[in-house]
Amino acid sequence: MSHNTYGHLFRVTTWGESHGPALGCVIDGCPPGIRFTQAEVQADLDKRRPGSSRFVTQRREPDQVRILSGVLPEDDGETLMTTGTPISMMIENVDQRSKDYGEIAKRYRPGHADYTYDMKYGIRDYRGGGRSSARETAARVAAGALARKVVPGLKVRGALVAMGEKDIDRNNWDWSTVDRPDNPFFTPDEASIAIFTEYLDGIRKAGSSVGAIIEIVAEGIPAGLGAPIYGKLDQDIASLLMSINAVKGVEIGNGFAAARLTGEDNADQMRIGKDGKPHFLSNQAGGILGGISTGMPVVARFAVKPTSSILTPRKSVDSDGNEVDVTTKGRHDPCVGIRAVPIGEAMVACAIADHYLRHRGQTGRV
Amino acid sequence: MSHNTYGHLFRVTTWGESHGPALGCVIDGCPPGIRFTQAEVQADLDKRRPGSSRFVTQRREPDQVRILSGVLPEDDGETLMTTGTPISMMIENVDQRSKDYGEIAKRYRPGHADYTYDMKYGIRDYRGGGRSSARETAARVAAGALARKVVPGLKVRGALVAMGEKDIDRNNWDWSTVDRPDNPFFTPDEASIAIFTEYLDGIRKAGSSVGAIIEIVAEGIPAGLGAPIYGKLDQDIASLLMSINAVKGVEIGNGFAAARLTGEDNADQMRIGKDGKPHFLSNQAGGILGGISTGMPVVARFAVKPTSSILTPRKSVDSDGNEVDVTTKGRHDPCVGIRAVPIGEAMVACAIADHYLRHRGQTGRV
Amino acid sequence: MSHNTYGHLFRVTTWGESHGPALGCVIDGCPPGIRFTQAEVQADLDKRRPGSSRFVTQRREPDQVRILSGVLPEDDGETLMTTGTPISMMIENVDQRSKDYGEIAKRYRPGHADYTYDMKYGIRDYRGGGRSSARETAARVAAGALARKVVPGLKVRGALVAMGEKDIDRNNWDWSTVDRPDNPFFTPDEASIAIFTEYLDGIRKAGSSVGAIIEIVAEGIPAGLGAPIYGKLDQDIASLLMSINAVKGVEIGNGFAAARLTGEDNADQMRIGKDGKPHFLSNQAGGILGGISTGMPVVARFAVKPTSSILTPRKSVDSDGNEVDVTTKGRHDPCVGIRAVPIGEAMVACAIADHYLRHRGQTGRV
Amino acid sequence: MSHNTYGHLFRVTTWGESHGPALGCVIDGCPPGIRFTQAEVQADLDKRRPGSSRFVTQRREPDQVRILSGVLPEDDGETLMTTGTPISMMIENVDQRSKDYGEIAKRYRPGHADYTYDMKYGIRDYRGGGRSSARETAARVAAGALARKVVPGLKVRGALVAMGEKDIDRNNWDWSTVDRPDNPFFTPDEASIAIFTEYLDGIRKAGSSVGAIIEIVAEGIPAGLGAPIYGKLDQDIASLLMSINAVKGVEIGNGFAAARLTGEDNADQMRIGKDGKPHFLSNQAGGILGGISTGMPVVARFAVKPTSSILTPRKSVDSDGNEVDVTTKGRHDPCVGIRAVPIGEAMVACAIADHYLRHRGQTGRV
Repeated sequence: MSHNTYGHLFRVTTWGESHGPALGCVIDGCPPGIRFTQAEVQADLDKRRPGSSRFVTQRREPDQVRILSGVLPEDDGETLMTTGTPISMMIENVDQRSKDYGEIAKRYRPGHADYTYDMKYGIRDYRGGGRSSARETAARVAAGALARKVVPGLKVRGALVAMGEKDIDRNNWDWSTVDRPDNPFFTPDEASIAIFTEYLDGIRKAGSSVGAIIEIVAEGIPAGLGAPIYGKLDQDIASLLMSINAVKGVEIGNGFAAARLTGEDNADQMRIGKDGKPHFLSNQAGGILGGISTGMPVVARFAVKPTSSILTPRKSVDSDGNEVDVTTKGRHDPCVGIRAVPIGEAMVACAIADHYLRHRGQTGRV
Repeated sequence: MSHNTYGHLFRVTTWGESHGPALGCVIDGCPPGIRFTQAEVQADLDKRRPGSSRFVTQRREPDQVRILSGVLPEDDGETLMTTGTPISMMIENVDQRSKDYGEIAKRYRPGHADYTYDMKYGIRDYRGGGRSSARETAARVAAGALARKVVPGLKVRGALVAMGEKDIDRNNWDWSTVDRPDNPFFTPDEASIAIFTEYLDGIRKAGSSVGAIIEIVAEGIPAGLGAPIYGKLDQDIASLLMSINAVKGVEIGNGFAAARLTGEDNADQMRIGKDGKPHFLSNQAGGILGGISTGMPVVARFAVKPTSSILTPRKSVDSDGNEVDVTTKGRHDPCVGIRAVPIGEAMVACAIADHYLRHRGQTGRV
Repeated sequence: MSHNTYGHLFRVTTWGESHGPALGCVIDGCPPGIRFTQAEVQADLDKRRPGSSRFVTQRREPDQVRILSGVLPEDDGETLMTTGTPISMMIENVDQRSKDYGEIAKRYRPGHADYTYDMKYGIRDYRGGGRSSARETAARVAAGALARKVVPGLKVRGALVAMGEKDIDRNNWDWSTVDRPDNPFFTPDEASIAIFTEYLDGIRKAGSSVGAIIEIVAEGIPAGLGAPIYGKLDQDIASLLMSINAVKGVEIGNGFAAARLTGEDNADQMRIGKDGKPHFLSNQAGGILGGISTGMPVVARFAVKPTSSILTPRKSVDSDGNEVDVTTKGRHDPCVGIRAVPIGEAMVACAIADHYLRHRGQTGRV
Repeated sequence: MSHNTYGHLFRVTTWGESHGPALGCVIDGCPPGIRFTQAEVQADLDKRRPGSSRFVTQRREPDQVRILSGVLPEDDGETLMTTGTPISMMIENVDQRSKDYGEIAKRYRPGHADYTYDMKYGIRDYRGGGRSSARETAARVAAGALARKVVPGLKVRGALVAMGEKDIDRNNWDWSTVDRPDNPFFTPDEASIAIFTEYLDGIRKAGSSVGAIIEIVAEGIPAGLGAPIYGKLDQDIASLLMSINAVKGVEIGNGFAAARLTGEDNADQMRIGKDGKPHFLSNQAGGILGGISTGMPVVARFAVKPTSSILTPRKSVDSDGNEVDVTTKGRHDPCVGIRAVPIGEAMVACAIADHYLRHRGQTGRV
């Protein structure tokens, strides 16, 4: 994985900036004969879309996806079938508020990639964060919508499990809560909706921001995906989750807590189930042992930092070498982690789809 | 990254099992003209070598490296110069205690990759963990020894910062402590040596095991390494650290703690330093913003789980479908995380070397 | 190189079918700070465009390129500057004559990929050749327009040197002839224009087709590009030229003729030039020795087969297992090799740009 | 493909120089459960081995292969079974005649990579050609021996079809002739043995050299391998054949001759065979249409240039800028193309094995 492409057999290349005419992705290596609809892709995109509540950025983007290649329409006029050739999807940028970037163009916003871009490229698209804009993640979500279809029976779901200092109560976990229309947080704990609402309203009014922790659970993965050494399934999941903007940590199963446990407490014991097959008695490992899937649900978590775009002035410098104070004006996103839930799902789905094809390629066992 | 190779321009392929005749690596893409000695590589390997204290596995392996290609000897008979062609390094396995694997060959050790190997390949080298043996990491360390030389001024160091329930006191951090001969733990906190000794002796005598957290700090990295989207420097570091055996979590800078902070507390402010150049006033980001190095030290941590090879019987099954109890006999490693310190250093060094060459390739700016 | 992407650091992914809404490419890894205009890309596309003479397909496609990402407009409103992020270019398909594909959909046209697609994918976009349509090559030409700018001083030119049984007279070689408006053949030999015209008119009227041989010459390449073994510059040029539709052979320098020569006749001798630097006294090697550029012009030739879309009925079968006779109706292209000239230039330019960046990455020597 | 690795799923990395202690390869991605013996690999190596007749280099190398990883021995003590992990094979260099390289070290041998190495790396292993030595091809042959086993029923054979000005008579083609012990040329035409012997003895005694053309025929390839655009089967075969030392041209099926034909003559017509399946009535295409295998034999040819190591003095320069005359002393190989036969077989086998796994990965259809 490098440049703007990820995946080895199921490969996704994304392109586009915040303020260019469009953004999109090319999905290469998708198996032929997969049926899907544009509406399914759009449904995933709508989960990530800005402007859906007062807790996410108010940029108005319909995020309408166009599918430009790699499919044959079925007779129902709706179903598309993949042909095995590259699938190009494009989303036009609509709400590119024109403004005077004169001042911003030179200022390095603390916590953003402005300074590092200038160090890397010597040139930077200062309009709305350019390539580093969270808008790029729309392309990931579109790709993920297709990745979900590659592995028969695969189900990838995500939930927000912590926001700033507040954690959910895992005893209340109910997946149906996550998608409730009155739940702007993707939390699986009904009781946390009110708590998060009050907490985040406070953060928002203070012009501040907080981070979040997201958990992704993927079920229906056959045992055997991954590879022992540098093609570990958890490695590629970690890589892709870490590639999401503002992510600073990734863990699988017990994750960092495993470092605190003894071998007795951390290992998953096995027994023969009623079906005569091996079963794990627990899932401390998060569905992956030695880099290879066990058949249990794959469980990954990632930490999203608070955005540095806040209303409090922060000390910085500009590209001319002047010391400046930077304050975010206009749109303000108090918890960018919320919208990371569908993005995390997409990345995990893509990693699994890729490993499914790689496993089939090398071993022919699925 | 996939299969048994990692890196895009500085590429490392490793091979070998625990109980085969040898293991090794091929380093491909190393710049020409780099001077190093076999002794330098050996010094890194000796840090990882088993048998160096009662707290690590007692397998007796000299881990003598042979350099088979890609170098020209200088006149001093010691210095080697890279020629730009692939550098093959080999380490012979010496201490392959022959024993009867009859019973073990079929049993799935809980927490190990035995079951998942059988699911993936339908065949498994049961001798000492086969490819998943920690011996593979010797090849990584050898590659890392060279990677350190690729970036002028690069310094990569690691330390153990937590073992099971015990944390170091970061106020006592002293890098010189890490390499003290009376410090078998790579801890940077002198006071923790006695604490860890007592704690781990208890674990060892109980036939149990604990996990650990390792921190890697890389200094001397120019600003500009990495890429905005799928070639993020932190992404590749996360990928490589997660590829180490038994690692279950990775974080950069504030990591998971960042999720708990506000934007005010997490952002690194900037000012113009006395040298007239931009300086960061803190390093919450761990040296990476938007996937690109800032010029500050890169700070990464990873969590190593406790090994499941313990003296307490654990429930499992075998490949014939029988329920069995598994107890580890013989060599026992109470905290496999200790030896992960030089391995983590090697992986971070390789990631940085690769990004240095990639950055030079695309931009010509270093 | 695999799937729909080529290149290692300068990477091009293309997408799109003959009869979808559009086709395009994503250029990833292009250095930042390169200046170009949309008109320059368009000029290259216009050389490849169908419908420019009676000797090429009469499909009417304006092939207007849109540049969707990866650039910043300069103040002159025309110049674009690359930012180092992926450059997405799109060309809409306009002339997709709607027709009844009922019969054609099942028939395997001899010499085309119809049968092999069905064998590979079990599904096939039968509309105009789908992904295998020569329209895909527009995306290559667009990418090549940028690749030409990556290496300072690089000049890549192509010419048709044989058509069916007719060869040019190399003694008449004049590059300025190639681009003359009255030369529909890209031949560098003025005398051959009349010969080819008469010959190809005969072929065209007979409803037949012929093949062609194209020669590409790239000048201004610094010595040192390429690599000794599996990253040979000639290897990557051969790979990319062979990836062009209908190409069946590739050669470098003396090529197949070298097999007939003695070592005395085939080797390029060297002397010190008036500039005090090593000079080659000839260029039998076509600018590449041991996979690495010598600094002399790189010379490559490739053979394009005659299209099988002819007016004479050919025996074939359909996907239902019936024996059928296939005759091409409508548009007919008597020598598809003509339009391969700008495509070959683009592929060679891309290979060189990629190796230039790779060489800079590994060695820092350019 | 780049650096010193080729293949996407079946990946081969080679390492080693002419005068280092050893050379070898790592085969990564080989399916598990493939049975083979070391003797089978050795048999392929023996075909390529130097010193087998007076027409090939007299360097005495036993080329004994050692298999260091990735296999489990079966009970018969001879059969090895692949485990799916990387297979490392090593061949020690034995006959490294020590000599004084003082003078040669600086001289650029015409037609060799000496000058280009210095231009690329600024340093060069002048001992016996270093990495560019034909010894590297032993590693390819070892890898090819395993690749042949990946595709059930695959048979890859090669033959020399032209040497200098002499061609075989294709009407005499008999595969059994190729392996006859009295045939040092791998020619399939019995009558040509005497012709080549006399011709090459003349060349050898004159201290000269000639080129050769090799043809590789691969049978038993299922239809459907390859991909339409940049993963064409012929493209990857061309790339790998062109990566062999001294190869200057590659062609598939009719190759360059196709450019001279009409569409009527070049297309392969189809009919339904007695087995009720589609059959091709000819194989002008060399088994590949649109980049995808047709099920017919894949036929590839490549041209090997005459070595420039001849006894006639050639004009050159040295790295100090002096004009010198270079004459080859000692071992002299009048037709390096002869030994290219088993190498070409290996490369084609590797390309097909890789595409077989890729096809299975993406489509699950084999």
